[in-house]
Order: sequence, then structure tokens, then C-alpha cells
Amino acid sequence: MADRNDVLGAAQRVLNADPGASMTVVAEAAGVSRATLNRHFDSRETLLVELGTRSLDQWAQRLDAVDVEAVAASGDAARIRAALEDLVLGYVDDSDAFGFALTDHVILANAALEERTQALADREAVLFAAAQASGVLRADLPLRWFGHAIYGLLVAAREAVRIGDVARRDAGHLVLSSLLAGVVPS
Amino acid sequence: MADRNDVLGAAQRVLNADPGASMTVVAEAAGVSRATLNRHFDSRETLLVELGTRSLDQWAQRLDAVDVEAVAASGDAARIRAALEDLVLGYVDDSDAFGFALTDHVILANAALEERTQALADREAVLFAAAQASGVLRADLPLRWFGHAIYGLLVAAREAVRIGDVARRDAGHLVLSSLLAGVVPS
Repeated sequence: MADRNDVLGAAQRVLNADPGASMTVVAEAAGVSRATLNRHFDSRETLLVELGTRSLDQWAQRLDAVDVEAVAASGDAARIRAALEDLVLGYVDDSDAFGFALTDHVILANAALEERTQALADREAVLFAAAQASGVLRADLPLRWFGHAIYGLLVAAREAVRIGDVARRDAGHLVLSSLLAGVVPS
Repeated sequence: MADRNDVLGAAQRVLNADPGASMTVVAEAAGVSRATLNRHFDSRETLLVELGTRSLDQWAQRLDAVDVEAVAASGDAARIRAALEDLVLGYVDDSDAFGFALTDHVILANAALEERTQALADREAVLFAAAQASGVLRADLPLRWFGHAIYGLLVAAREAVRIGDVARRDAGHLVLSSLLAGVVPS
């Protein structure tokens, strides 16, 4: 019997490939009946919100893994730069699994997820502020822009891989290099 | 009486604010009955595809306006750089009006729109290739990445403006400056 986690994993894969997939298609992919799917998730929105929650859990884990508050507090440019690179490369890896959640409008419109997104963006902003203070990031750009720019390049990389313009193994480098150095020769 | 164009304009505004808005909400915003809305657009998908078509029309007009093929053929670095900047700033302006279409999955999954998107990306790629050849864009990045990076930063700017992190008047500069120079001090 497929348990709740198996169903969620299958739903994530289906929705990544086709973000508009119906509950019927999700049930088929998970190898369960519509009745079983409905027992686990009473609506498509419930399922999407749970997948959004998982993607935010993963974001939180990435911030924990680089010890973002401690690195920011250190003021050490080399540590801050390394943490920033680790985070971005980690996000690119995650966007392969959670990609549809980046732009799904049900997930983006959910108030609880929006609040948690803001709290995670606040944690990240502490690192960006330390990066600006230590010369790792440009001081002339608004603090709140950095997180958005990273997000946008994740959406870009996911789409580029999806339609076959970029190899999955190149995505991390392309995002990081474009973000840090821009697309014009230095 | 609201004509088809009025209804389309109202639908675009509503969907920009709430990409999940139902046909009932769209009809209310356009000041027409559901019956009238259905007479113009037989389904939500028909309406979305028409809005996607309009956003691609606008993209084509931007490419025409900078005379993209002639500029690319000139091989003149200054002209290529100026056309690139004009295009990006124009796209940022357009993304304010067409923003939801950037990530709407019904629009992205439509085969006819996908084919036309590819044709427009091909036109743009001619400019990017000329920009790489003339030293305006980095030669070490894959040609097909530039369009995606621009797209991602448009999504980023739209989201940053939407949630109030970035002023609308700053969006063009932020996208262009981050794209060209990156977020690290040079």
C-alpha cells in the first residue's frame, strides 16, 4: 500500500512535469485510487499546500546547513561568500525536485506559506546584509533584491533544463556564475 | 457594452493580481455577465491562451522595434549593446502588464504558444550570438542561457514589485544591472 509520503513524492514528480495535472492523473501516477488519494488529501489545494510546505522545509534545511546566522555574524568575507555559493548551488539542486512549487499560484497565494516564505527570506537577508557590509555583495543594490534575483535565476534554470536548452549538470554553475559576475565580460 | 478587447484587458488585470481568478471573478471585474464572458471565450483556457498570444505579440513588437536582425547583422558592439539594453528595459515594462503570463502553466503548456515562443527565442538568439561574437556578452556561457536568464530576472522583478520589496520604477535598472554586471562588486 502506498503511504502518504509515497503519494506526495509521486504527486511532486507528476506536477513537476505537468503543473496542471489533475487529481485523477496524480492518483494514477501514485498507483492509488481516487478514493485513496482523497483520503490522504481532501482537495488539490491541500496537496499543493503540503508540497509547498515541503519545499519551504527544504529551504530552511539549506539555511540551517550553512549555519546562516553564525556565518553572517562572523562578518568574515570568505565564509560569507562560501555560504552564499553553497546556498545557491543547493537551491538549484532542490529546484529540480521542487521546481513547480516555485511558480505555482496556489502555493504562492497561500497565506500561511507566504508568511513562512517571508520568515525564511528574512533569515537569508541577514546573510545578504553581512555580505554587503563585508564587500561580498554590491552595496548599491537593495538588500531585498538579492533573494528575488536568486529566485528568478532558479526559475530560469529549471525552465532551461525542462525545455532542453541547458544540461542539468550545468545549471548550478550557470546560475551561480550569472548571478555573481553577470553576463557581460569583466 | 464591453467589447472583446475590454474584457481581455480586464481579465489581464485581474489575473495579474490573482493568477487563479475564476471566470466568475473575471466577469465581475470586466462588468459583464458570465453568459457574455462565455460568448467571447468558451473556456478559461481559451481566455488564457489569448492573453498568452497578446504577450507574445508584445515580445515580437519589442524585437521589431530594435530591428534585432539588422543590429545583429551589423556586428557593431555599441549598437548590439544598446539594443540589448532597450530590449531588457522594454521587457520589464511589459512584465508589469503581462506578468502572470510569464509563469502561467496553461499558457506554458499550450503547444501553439510554445512553438511561437521558440520562434521568438530564435530571433533573440541571433542577437545574443552577435553579442557574444562582438564581446558584448560572455562567450563562455551557452547561447541559449541568455534568454532564460533574462526571463528569470523578469519573473524576479515582477514578484519583488508585487510583494512590495522593490519599487516599480527601480525594476528596470535592477534587472539590467544584475544581468549585465552581476551582484558582486567588480
